[in-house]
Amino acid sequence: VFPSSAFSFFCQTLLLRVFHEVEQAYAVWPMPQQMSQSTDRYPINPQLLAFSYARDSAAQSGCSVLDAAFERYFNLIFPDFVGLSNIWSEPKPFTVSVKVKNGECDGFPDEGSNESYNLSVSAGQAVLKAESVWGALRGLESFSQLVYQDDYNLYFVNKTEIEDFPRFQFRGLLLDTSRHYLPMPAILKTLDAMAYSKFNVFHWHIVDDPSFPYQSRNYPDLSSKGAFHPMTHIYTQSDVKRVIYHARLRGIRVVPEFDSPGHTQSWGKGQPDLLTSCYKGKVPSGTFGPVNPTLSSTYQFLNGLFKEVTSVFPDSYLHLGGDEVDFTCWRSNPNVQAFMAKMGFGSDYTKLESYYMENIVNITAALNKTSIVWQDVFDYRERIPMDTVLEIWKGVPADYRAELGRITLAGYRVLLSAPWYINHISYGQDWRNAYTVQPQNFSGTEQQKKLVIGGEVCMWGEYVDATNLTPRLWPRASAAAERLWSDEEKTSSVDKAFPRLEDFRCTLIRRGIQAEPLFVGHCKHEYSGL
Amino acid sequence: VFPSSAFSFFCQTLLLRVFHEVEQAYAVWPMPQQMSQSTDRYPINPQLLAFSYARDSAAQSGCSVLDAAFERYFNLIFPDFVGLSNIWSEPKPFTVSVKVKNGECDGFPDEGSNESYNLSVSAGQAVLKAESVWGALRGLESFSQLVYQDDYNLYFVNKTEIEDFPRFQFRGLLLDTSRHYLPMPAILKTLDAMAYSKFNVFHWHIVDDPSFPYQSRNYPDLSSKGAFHPMTHIYTQSDVKRVIYHARLRGIRVVPEFDSPGHTQSWGKGQPDLLTSCYKGKVPSGTFGPVNPTLSSTYQFLNGLFKEVTSVFPDSYLHLGGDEVDFTCWRSNPNVQAFMAKMGFGSDYTKLESYYMENIVNITAALNKTSIVWQDVFDYRERIPMDTVLEIWKGVPADYRAELGRITLAGYRVLLSAPWYINHISYGQDWRNAYTVQPQNFSGTEQQKKLVIGGEVCMWGEYVDATNLTPRLWPRASAAAERLWSDEEKTSSVDKAFPRLEDFRCTLIRRGIQAEPLFVGHCKHEYSGL
Repeated sequence: VFPSSAFSFFCQTLLLRVFHEVEQAYAVWPMPQQMSQSTDRYPINPQLLAFSYARDSAAQSGCSVLDAAFERYFNLIFPDFVGLSNIWSEPKPFTVSVKVKNGECDGFPDEGSNESYNLSVSAGQAVLKAESVWGALRGLESFSQLVYQDDYNLYFVNKTEIEDFPRFQFRGLLLDTSRHYLPMPAILKTLDAMAYSKFNVFHWHIVDDPSFPYQSRNYPDLSSKGAFHPMTHIYTQSDVKRVIYHARLRGIRVVPEFDSPGHTQSWGKGQPDLLTSCYKGKVPSGTFGPVNPTLSSTYQFLNGLFKEVTSVFPDSYLHLGGDEVDFTCWRSNPNVQAFMAKMGFGSDYTKLESYYMENIVNITAALNKTSIVWQDVFDYRERIPMDTVLEIWKGVPADYRAELGRITLAGYRVLLSAPWYINHISYGQDWRNAYTVQPQNFSGTEQQKKLVIGGEVCMWGEYVDATNLTPRLWPRASAAAERLWSDEEKTSSVDKAFPRLEDFRCTLIRRGIQAEPLFVGHCKHEYSGL
Repeated sequence: VFPSSAFSFFCQTLLLRVFHEVEQAYAVWPMPQQMSQSTDRYPINPQLLAFSYARDSAAQSGCSVLDAAFERYFNLIFPDFVGLSNIWSEPKPFTVSVKVKNGECDGFPDEGSNESYNLSVSAGQAVLKAESVWGALRGLESFSQLVYQDDYNLYFVNKTEIEDFPRFQFRGLLLDTSRHYLPMPAILKTLDAMAYSKFNVFHWHIVDDPSFPYQSRNYPDLSSKGAFHPMTHIYTQSDVKRVIYHARLRGIRVVPEFDSPGHTQSWGKGQPDLLTSCYKGKVPSGTFGPVNPTLSSTYQFLNGLFKEVTSVFPDSYLHLGGDEVDFTCWRSNPNVQAFMAKMGFGSDYTKLESYYMENIVNITAALNKTSIVWQDVFDYRERIPMDTVLEIWKGVPADYRAELGRITLAGYRVLLSAPWYINHISYGQDWRNAYTVQPQNFSGTEQQKKLVIGGEVCMWGEYVDATNLTPRLWPRASAAAERLWSDEEKTSSVDKAFPRLEDFRCTLIRRGIQAEPLFVGHCKHEYSGL
């Protein structure tokens, strides 16, 4: 109406546009360690984008991990690409050249894997250099997030330099497939989304009290009697292989958890005499408690099961659980009482728990695997090998900071998951809580801080199955992912993270991940896959 | 191991099976007013199930509502049906015969619609009798829930008698398409699921501050300038027609809300001079407040908009909003101040708000529509027609019981939504809160209680879009649906409701509704449509 106001509006819009473009160009989630960018931008023609191996790269065509990644990232960068259109007039090719120092193309990612990479984007090319294929995967993810579309749907990438590496070696996500069975597509899709946030460990809490879906080769009764359904609600050996394969191609380790001696009700259905028979007075009550730690048959079984499990899962870690053991049933059982007396444990059942955990940690060590256990095992002062990793899960009102101090003071390595139980939902922007965690902010020496090897987002399954898993995970888990990957000082402002995480969640939606909104607003392409 | 114990286990299993079958047979959600059932069961062969109109039915073949419902419910009852299989050996036909007293086949459901029905299931047939097609729809839904599959996937229905009618006339669900745009499939799928829980009003909170997605015929700038995007984030006239059509076939009214004078920021973008210009001292600050109630142009515009809206939406109700008006901006504006003085309102801005609401309620009445407004309008002691419906939304710490008493004492009809803001999520089984609401439990006469015409589940959009809408709605909204449909005394136990609601949520999943779990457990057919 007023020309001057209209002009001002026009200018404002223009400024916003420029600002928005720069914003968009900067949006790599989680934030790289070092990144510089200019407003110089280069067009990318989908017909003429090519991924290639640098001549002096240790990995070359035929490298399974990178061959698959090139194909995957092409489709992620150009979600609309149909391969036919010739509207685009930009005639210049754009090459993403990848150089890897050590191959590892056919290996599995593990604790020692190097995920660092350098990425340099200039006119007509991006040069990606990494120690290993695992770092190259992280670099490809960052590159894919740098490419954007303008209002005419043309693709661009800005001049960019990135030097990047993870803050923590272990960046995990736990899924619980016992309280609810998660069909394979739900797990595979979660692995896809994990890679977008640079998670590198899938902690598979595969069995627990309610059901035993892992189909064991040596103990088939465990799932045929302990799963919700023996045919439709199980993970076959092929399913497990597929999960490990899918994860490997994305640089993700698969660490299974076989939690005992508690949380094992479902085990008892297919393995007679494994669980402690609870007594009411002088007679068995008909109910069962934790694994019976007094019988040698128990350890024979566990040795057999772990032998199988460690051959099925290639990762060097095995999670043994060890949390929340209720002593009531042990106390009631006369045979357990006799064993306590024989061993001189008095009436201290934590000693019995320790005895059990020490035994199974030793079984695991003999199988050349490193154990992860929940913090309870440390709290009970068990004698466990110094390479055991303790995982902190007790949050409010327990103080996980104090526990970080205690465990690292004792010289153990530690994983933090207490503040990242994101199955606990609340109304509003609760991703902010996950974002503002400071895993190394506790009283301790520099040496102690280094013993914090990472953390895990946990999605326990009491109220979660495939119907609501994805929107509860994303982008809330991504908030923790940035904390685990990025420099803490550069990502100290949760308010500055907000618009970047909003952009990233639109990226997730564009990739078919049903990621829920952070607040009022919209994405250019909304989720509509109902 | 022990034969006797094995036998006992066998018996227990058998008992559980029988019990489970009866349970399953009883599972109609929401619970019918009267229902008796025996364990006599009749097989149903999908090849030989037929829906038919009774000879003396007012509706006959060609009745759009029921023709479509027959087709729909066939597919809902037999989700696996492919029309080819001939494995089934049951040679007897099963007929669902529907008799409707008054046709209404081409009409719209409205406040006076009769939804009662009687259903009698015996050998080879089900007889469904209803006053109107709307009652027949409710009866078909109940019948569809009575049919179950045994372990061999054969279909059965038990001998059953149902006499049923809704406790409340108005059983609504609100979707907010302004804070996030909901693509059409999300709205249509929600209407499907609403019918499964016997909801009968879709309250479409179509516009609000963040965006104006309704594409008006007469005022196209409202959406072209006020929507998140003028092409992709709007509801065209065709979209609206499709929603109304889809809802009608399911016996669902569509009541649009055009909330004013607050919650209108997005309106201002496409309608100059509609909003009040806020002042900072003696000059306009550049920001805008609620609709400007002092200008005749405002009422001309609203008359034009409501004239259009009431012609587009056939329902006899129109929701006018009227909630949460912030007076700060009105106070700052010298023209508004002058108007206040002229009208003798002093400095009581609630009088200005009343003046505005009375005007638009009168506009609505002149268009032969009944107004619904939020409780604020009553709280401001506005003079509004006695047929206006007040909707209570203020919950904790406000006491909605006291407000129920006050509004009904004044003789107004009331809708309850305060305890059903199910966008407010919390960890755990929060559906129990929605279930235990007692809408008529307030101090007042029987006459007053009758003025409670129903309630609404509200899913506000701050944190909700198509990515998480469905699992947040279902089955939590179904808990409120039973409260609004069923006899309160017969459904007073939330613990007894639990297994029934668990079964119902598995039914929803089987029908493709991404309904989240209530607790640990499983469905025979899990959701896997990722």
